[in-house]
Amino acid sequence: MSINSFGRMFRVTTWGESHGPALGATVDGCPPGVPVDEGMIQHWLDRRKPGQNKYTTQRREADAVKILSGVFEGQTTGTPVQLMIENTDQRSKDYSEIAEKFRPGHADITYWQKYGIRDYRGGGRSSARETAARVAAGGLAREAIKALVPDLQITGYMVRMGEHEIDRSLFDWGEIERNPFWVPDRQAAEDWADYLDRLRKSGSSVGAVIEVVARGVPAGLGAPVYGKLDTDLAAAMMSINAVKGVEIGEGMAAAKLTGEANADEIFMGNDGQPVFSSNHAGGILGGISTGQDIIVRFAVKPTSSILTPRKTITKSGEETEIITKGRHDPCVGIRAVPVAEAMAAAVILDHLLLDRAQTGGLRGPIG
Amino acid sequence: MSINSFGRMFRVTTWGESHGPALGATVDGCPPGVPVDEGMIQHWLDRRKPGQNKYTTQRREADAVKILSGVFEGQTTGTPVQLMIENTDQRSKDYSEIAEKFRPGHADITYWQKYGIRDYRGGGRSSARETAARVAAGGLAREAIKALVPDLQITGYMVRMGEHEIDRSLFDWGEIERNPFWVPDRQAAEDWADYLDRLRKSGSSVGAVIEVVARGVPAGLGAPVYGKLDTDLAAAMMSINAVKGVEIGEGMAAAKLTGEANADEIFMGNDGQPVFSSNHAGGILGGISTGQDIIVRFAVKPTSSILTPRKTITKSGEETEIITKGRHDPCVGIRAVPVAEAMAAAVILDHLLLDRAQTGGLRGPIG
Amino acid sequence: MSINSFGRMFRVTTWGESHGPALGATVDGCPPGVPVDEGMIQHWLDRRKPGQNKYTTQRREADAVKILSGVFEGQTTGTPVQLMIENTDQRSKDYSEIAEKFRPGHADITYWQKYGIRDYRGGGRSSARETAARVAAGGLAREAIKALVPDLQITGYMVRMGEHEIDRSLFDWGEIERNPFWVPDRQAAEDWADYLDRLRKSGSSVGAVIEVVARGVPAGLGAPVYGKLDTDLAAAMMSINAVKGVEIGEGMAAAKLTGEANADEIFMGNDGQPVFSSNHAGGILGGISTGQDIIVRFAVKPTSSILTPRKTITKSGEETEIITKGRHDPCVGIRAVPVAEAMAAAVILDHLLLDRAQTGGLRGPIG
Amino acid sequence: MSINSFGRMFRVTTWGESHGPALGATVDGCPPGVPVDEGMIQHWLDRRKPGQNKYTTQRREADAVKILSGVFEGQTTGTPVQLMIENTDQRSKDYSEIAEKFRPGHADITYWQKYGIRDYRGGGRSSARETAARVAAGGLAREAIKALVPDLQITGYMVRMGEHEIDRSLFDWGEIERNPFWVPDRQAAEDWADYLDRLRKSGSSVGAVIEVVARGVPAGLGAPVYGKLDTDLAAAMMSINAVKGVEIGEGMAAAKLTGEANADEIFMGNDGQPVFSSNHAGGILGGISTGQDIIVRFAVKPTSSILTPRKTITKSGEETEIITKGRHDPCVGIRAVPVAEAMAAAVILDHLLLDRAQTGGLRGPIG
Repeated sequence: MSINSFGRMFRVTTWGESHGPALGATVDGCPPGVPVDEGMIQHWLDRRKPGQNKYTTQRREADAVKILSGVFEGQTTGTPVQLMIENTDQRSKDYSEIAEKFRPGHADITYWQKYGIRDYRGGGRSSARETAARVAAGGLAREAIKALVPDLQITGYMVRMGEHEIDRSLFDWGEIERNPFWVPDRQAAEDWADYLDRLRKSGSSVGAVIEVVARGVPAGLGAPVYGKLDTDLAAAMMSINAVKGVEIGEGMAAAKLTGEANADEIFMGNDGQPVFSSNHAGGILGGISTGQDIIVRFAVKPTSSILTPRKTITKSGEETEIITKGRHDPCVGIRAVPVAEAMAAAVILDHLLLDRAQTGGLRGPIG
Repeated sequence: MSINSFGRMFRVTTWGESHGPALGATVDGCPPGVPVDEGMIQHWLDRRKPGQNKYTTQRREADAVKILSGVFEGQTTGTPVQLMIENTDQRSKDYSEIAEKFRPGHADITYWQKYGIRDYRGGGRSSARETAARVAAGGLAREAIKALVPDLQITGYMVRMGEHEIDRSLFDWGEIERNPFWVPDRQAAEDWADYLDRLRKSGSSVGAVIEVVARGVPAGLGAPVYGKLDTDLAAAMMSINAVKGVEIGEGMAAAKLTGEANADEIFMGNDGQPVFSSNHAGGILGGISTGQDIIVRFAVKPTSSILTPRKTITKSGEETEIITKGRHDPCVGIRAVPVAEAMAAAVILDHLLLDRAQTGGLRGPIG
Repeated sequence: MSINSFGRMFRVTTWGESHGPALGATVDGCPPGVPVDEGMIQHWLDRRKPGQNKYTTQRREADAVKILSGVFEGQTTGTPVQLMIENTDQRSKDYSEIAEKFRPGHADITYWQKYGIRDYRGGGRSSARETAARVAAGGLAREAIKALVPDLQITGYMVRMGEHEIDRSLFDWGEIERNPFWVPDRQAAEDWADYLDRLRKSGSSVGAVIEVVARGVPAGLGAPVYGKLDTDLAAAMMSINAVKGVEIGEGMAAAKLTGEANADEIFMGNDGQPVFSSNHAGGILGGISTGQDIIVRFAVKPTSSILTPRKTITKSGEETEIITKGRHDPCVGIRAVPVAEAMAAAVILDHLLLDRAQTGGLRGPIG
Repeated sequence: MSINSFGRMFRVTTWGESHGPALGATVDGCPPGVPVDEGMIQHWLDRRKPGQNKYTTQRREADAVKILSGVFEGQTTGTPVQLMIENTDQRSKDYSEIAEKFRPGHADITYWQKYGIRDYRGGGRSSARETAARVAAGGLAREAIKALVPDLQITGYMVRMGEHEIDRSLFDWGEIERNPFWVPDRQAAEDWADYLDRLRKSGSSVGAVIEVVARGVPAGLGAPVYGKLDTDLAAAMMSINAVKGVEIGEGMAAAKLTGEANADEIFMGNDGQPVFSSNHAGGILGGISTGQDIIVRFAVKPTSSILTPRKTITKSGEETEIITKGRHDPCVGIRAVPVAEAMAAAVILDHLLLDRAQTGGLRGPIG
C-alpha cells in the first residue's frame, strides 16, 4: 500500500500535520556507513525554510531537524533513520471559519469527502509544511549519493513565474543561489521581484515552472517498463503539493517535433562513452538513464489562499464566500525548488540501489 | 520492487517481448464475481491493433487474447488472471543491422548499457507491442469498474498532432470513434489525414498530445500524500512508451494563472453534491477526486524509427549512420489512445479498491 | 522493499534503537474515524513494560507513548499515525566490552558482518526494546478492529517455560491476567515462579512457548496463495526477537496425524454458519479464515545474555570469553506475550482491510 | 498488495488453476546474463512431477515448462521471465459431488466463503498443482544463485513421516536421491515404504516433516527487523499447501533450552572467518545469516482427500458425508521436498540481491 511512502529500496514515509506537535520522515533502506549529522540535513532544510524573505510565508519555523535513529557515531547504520521536525510556530488563532468552509482549489473539501474528518488547522496533512520532511529525507539521500557517485549534482531552479519566462540565452548556474527565486537569469530575478511584490500586496498569487537537472548520473539507472526512471521522477514531482504537470526533456513540446528533429544523434566521446548531439530525451531513453543530464520540469499552480473573496460552501452545505487571511506564499513555486531537488535525490538514490541489486553494476561495454 | 508491475490492489505485471512466442499481463487482486470473457477483452485490443489503416504500422497481428486463469464459468474468481497474446507475425527478417547499431532516440543503447544484453528483435521489451498487454489488463479493469460504478466512463482522444491542435469549440464526443485518429473534431480529422499521409510517405514521424477524461468518478478516490490519484495517473501515463510529459487539468498552463483565475468556485448542486464553477483542477484536489471529470493529458514524442539517416554508433563503438526501415507508425500517438484509456481504467479501479479498504466507502456528508 | 515495515494496508514501520533518544512506529493506512488517545495505547504498553516484577529486566522505562500525528480531536484522520516512545533510562555505563566482543547467540556478530557498523549500546536495533513500538502499533490496531468487528478478541498466554508445560485440562482464561507469566493454569503459575526464580538467581535463562488465540474472526480473511492469513501470522511472529518456530493449529504435530484424525468435520450451526467438530486447522484453511478460533503458537529461545562465561571472539578476531552482566530477562518469553498479541492484531486488521478491498465484504452464502 | 506474489527484488507471481489451460510463474527482477534454458528448469520440475512412483498421485502430467519471455540467446535479459506449464491431463470426470460438498480440512469451504465462487475442478487454485510454478521459479533462482555464489547448495529431505522419524546418526547426504521419499537414512527409506504402502491401500494419508539446508550462504544476508531472512523463509514455507508449522535451527525445541545450552560459541577459523561450536541458531542471528548452514524445517499435514467418509455440509447447507476418490498422494510431504527447495532458493536469491542493493556487498571485517 504505502500511501504515504515512496521509493523502493530507499524508502521514505513522511508523517505529520501542519499544526500537530511534529512532523518527519521515516527513512528505511539507507546504505550503512554514510557520514551524516544533523547539520548536513539542516543545510537543506534552511533553504526551504519559510519567512526568509518577503516572498514566502511569514510563518517563522526554526525547522530544526533531529535525527532520532539510524545514525551512530556520525554514520548511518543501515537501520531506519527517523528525521523529526518539531512544529514551534503553531500560533493560536481562530480556525472557526476554515473549519466550517472549504477553500476553493484546496484539499479541504476532498479530505472531508473521503475521510469525514480533517485536521483543518493550517491545512493539516495537506499543508505544504509536509514538504519539510521531504527535504530532510532528500538531504540524507544526497549524502548517500555523495558516498556512491561523488560527482553527481542535482540543481533546481525556476524557469517561469506566471506570464514571465527566463531567457535561456542568459542562463547562469552561478546566479541561482543569488536571488530569492532560484532563477538562473539575473535580469529575470530583478523583474520578477517587482512583479511578485505587486501580487503579494494585492493579496493574489501566481503559478510557476521549476526545472531540476541532475548532472553526472551514470548510464543504466531505471528499469523497464513500470519502474522507469522517468516514471518515478514524474510521480515524485506530481506528488508535491500544487503540481499540475510534469515534463521530461522536451516535455509537452515533444508533440510538435518530427522524428528527425527529436532524434539525439550518437557519437563516441574521447573517454569511450557515447556522446549525444542534443538532449531532447532529457537523459532518459526507454526509462533508463543515458548518462546525459537528467532534465525534469513541472508546473506549480497558484496558491488558492488569496484575499479576493471566492464563492464556496460550508460543511453544512450552505453557499457562502471565503477570503483566506493569514501567512501565505504569493508564489509557492519558490519553496518548491528545494523540495523538488530533494525528491530528485531520493529517486536517483533509489535507482542507484535498485540497479546494483539487479545488475551488480554490470555494464554493457561499448567498443 | 516490482519493476514490471503497477497498481497496489489491482496489480498488473506485464511480460513479454515483441518477437518472443507471446506476451501478456498477470493481473492479481481483481475482485471476484466480475462477468468477463475473452470477447470483452478482445474488444479493447481490437481498437489498438496495428494494421487497421494506413496510419499505423503494417505489422499484422491477430492480437488474440487468451484467458489462462482466474476466470471460471464466465466470472472472475479472485485469483490471478493471466491474459496471454501470442505473437504470430514474427516475420523472419534480417536483424543484423539493428543488432549492431543503436537507433538514436530509442531504448536500444540504454538496455545495452544497463543489462549488457538485449533482445533487439523488433525492439524486444521496449517495443510498443508491450502496450497490448496493458490494453488487455485495462479491458479487465473496465469490466470490474462496470460492476462497481456502472456509470463511470473513460474516454481518450487526440488533441494535438505535431503543429496541429483541435478546435475545442468544435468538440464532439460522437466524432471520436468515427476517425482513425480518435479526434473529437471532425475538421481536424480531415486535415490531419492529409498531413499524416504526407509525413508517412516521406518516412518521417510526428508527436501528439492525448487527453483522457474519466466521467462519473466518485469523490474521495486517491490518498495523500504519495498515493495520490494524480500521482498514480501521472506515473501510469509516463510509463507508456514515448511519453515525455503529463498534465492534470490545467497542466503546465497552471503556472500562468493567478489564484483568482485558478480557483474552481464551489456551489451546492440540486442532488446535494457540490458543483464547481470550472475544472482547472482536473477533478483532483490534494490527490483526491472531487467528483468532477478527471482530466489527464500527455505528450507522445515522434517515433525514432524514420527513413532519414541519423548518426549513431555501433556496439563496437564505431561511428556510423542508421535508417530504420520496416513497419512503423508515423504517429505512435494514435495507438496510444486505447493504451492510455487502459492505464486510466487500471488506476481508477485500483483506487476504488484502495478506498474501500481504508474507508469502507465512508463519506463525509456535506449538508 | 520495506525491510522495517510489515502489513499491506495497515502498514507499520518501526524505527529506533535501544539507547537512542527515542523509538517508535510509523503507521500508514489506518482507517479514519477510529476513536483513540494516548491512554488507550499506553494500556497495552504497560503490559509489556519492563521492571514490573522480578522476572523481567530491571531496566526502568516509563515507556510513555506520544501520538505525534494522524489523530485529531480524539479520532484517527486516515493520515499516518506516529507513535513515539522516548528512551529515558539510557543508563550511562561502560560499553567497552560489548563494543569489542560478540555475544554468542546474539545479533552482535551478524550486524557487524552485514553493515560494518553497529550501535552496540543495549543491543541497538536488535534489542527487544524495539518490540515496544510493535505493541504501540498493535494497540492502535486493536482500536481499529474494535470499530470494525467489536466482538473480535485477541489473547496471548504462555503454554511452556523450559521443560514445563501447562496442563490443558486446567485451562482458565481468567487466570491469564492474574500471574506474571500470562499462564492460563494456576498451578503452573505457582510452580514456574519458583523455577524461574532459581534460574534468575543463577544468572541463567530459559525459553518458552506462547500461544495467541483470536476469537470472533470472521470467515473469509486471508488470500491465496502468498497473502495467506497463516503466512502473514507466521512471518509476524517469526520477526519477533528470539523466535525460532511458529505453528498454526496442530502445528508440527500435524505431521504425526492421519487424514482421518486431522479432518475437522463440518456441520451446520443454528445460526446458519458452519460449525466444526474440531480445530486441527487452527481456524485457517487454504490461507483463509474459517470463522473458528485462529490459533498461532511460537517458541522463544532463551536469552543469550547470561552470567556463565561463553567462548567468543573480538572484533579484532581474537578468541576470548564473555559474561553478559546488566539488566536482562531470565525468560524473554514473558514479555513476548503482549508483543505477539500486538502482531496478531496488526495482521488481522490488515486482512480485514484487504478483504474489503478485494471482495467488499461479499460472502458466499451457505444454504 | 501482491497476494499472489513473493519476494522483493526477485519477485515471483504464480498464476493458474489445477484444471485450467495452463499455470505458471511470472518472475520479475531476475539479474541479466544468467545462462538458462528450458532444460535447466525442467530438471527441477521433473523431481516434483506426479505419477513417478506409487507413493504420489497417479495424475500424469508432462509438466513441460515453456519460457515465454525474458531469455534471449540462452541468457536472461533482465526483463520478466514467464514460465508456463500447460495442463495436459485434465481428465474429464464428474465433478458434481465436489462442486456441491466441501471437503473437511480443505480450502473448498473458505474459498466459497470468501469469494462466493470457486473453481472446484481438482481444487482449482488451492490445488498442490500450483507448486509446479514455484518449482519452475525456483529453478531459475538456482541458476541465478549459481552465477552469484557458485558453491551455495540447497538440499531438502524428509525427516519424519507420521510417527516415524529418521535416525540422525545414520544421516547420509548421498541417500537422499536414492529413495522416493528423499530420506537421508537408508533404513528409514525401507521401513517407510511398507508403512506408506499400507496407508495408501487403506485410502488413508499421513503428515510429514521436511528439512531444508542451505550450505555456503554468505554471512550478512537478511535485514532487521521485518525483512529478516528467517521471517522470509518462514513465510515462504508456510505459504506451501498443507504446511502447519515452521522451524529455524532448534525450532520449537528452543523453548526447552537454557541460555548456556543454546549459545553457539564463536571461534576464529583458519580462513579468517568465524566458526561456531554448534548451530542451534540454524545459521541466522537477528534475522541475518552467520555463514553457517541455514536450517529450516516444516510440518505438512496429511492430505484431507481420503477414502474414509467424513461428515460435511453442502453449498445448500445440508449435512452430508463425503469420500474423496480420485488420484491423491498418501503423503503430500514427499512432493513438498522439491517445492521447499525452490522456495528456499527464491528467498536466498532475493536476499543476495537485497543485500547488494543496500550494502553493495560491503562486509565488516573481523580481525
